[in-house]
Amino acid sequence: MSTTDPLFDTDFMKEMLRQVRALDSYGVYDGKSAEQLLAPYVLSKEARAAIPILGDPDAVTLSRVRAFYNAIAVLVEKECGQMAVPLVHLSHEGFGRVLITVGKLVVLDRALRDAHRFGFESFSKMKTEADKQLGLAIEIVGRYAEVAGL
Amino acid sequence: MSTTDPLFDTDFMKEMLRQVRALDSYGVYDGKSAEQLLAPYVLSKEARAAIPILGDPDAVTLSRVRAFYNAIAVLVEKECGQMAVPLVHLSHEGFGRVLITVGKLVVLDRALRDAHRFGFESFSKMKTEADKQLGLAIEIVGRYAEVAGL
Repeated sequence: MSTTDPLFDTDFMKEMLRQVRALDSYGVYDGKSAEQLLAPYVLSKEARAAIPILGDPDAVTLSRVRAFYNAIAVLVEKECGQMAVPLVHLSHEGFGRVLITVGKLVVLDRALRDAHRFGFESFSKMKTEADKQLGLAIEIVGRYAEVAGL
Repeated sequence: MSTTDPLFDTDFMKEMLRQVRALDSYGVYDGKSAEQLLAPYVLSKEARAAIPILGDPDAVTLSRVRAFYNAIAVLVEKECGQMAVPLVHLSHEGFGRVLITVGKLVVLDRALRDAHRFGFESFSKMKTEADKQLGLAIEIVGRYAEVAGL
């Protein structure tokens, strides 16, 4: 699991790894590096375009989307000290909605489209996106602490 | 569609009917009375107990649960004049979570268990339950209007 990129030492990437490893009931990921385990999250524009968006995304793709938002929820929880509950809801054909709630406050609310193609151009872009979402979530918790505490 | 029970003239029951009729793409409900259309929502204790809770609830049961919370969301929207978004999420084996959000405010948040057996002892109990949820939702929108307006 030795990786040289300091990106993998950040809280977010560590949590992502934890989430992905938690999906590995049969130990098939044992001995793989962080980069190998998170590789499916990195999709070039060409690779994305090549993924068909017909029908519902498969279970593996879905668990990848879940792991990403679960990781964000865990970090929200760590920063604000209150339970953050993620909800990834795919309705059909890769459309859906992601929510993270803290108390009665919605701290993240995003529409999902083309979930089949869920991915980022690089690990760095993935982390930037997660940090942005985390920052917005923490800000709103701070602003409406009473609602978040309900 | 002539029914004598004044219960069916209430906003909630009218909206329930609208929701259930909206599911009827092929017109098989045409000519049925309100009582007939909403009959699947009434389950005696014995009838509930007789429904097996193995595996995931079927699509018909799910759409019944959805219609109920959609109706509540519509009434929330009518009363507070802001969009109320329902989200019925079943994870597995009848477990799940229902959320209704207005802006960034969670106005209804319930755990679902044994969704296979979703139903009420009578129409009157169904309406009482819906009114209770609606009341709580409107109250919290009033209390945290700023968050609901986000």
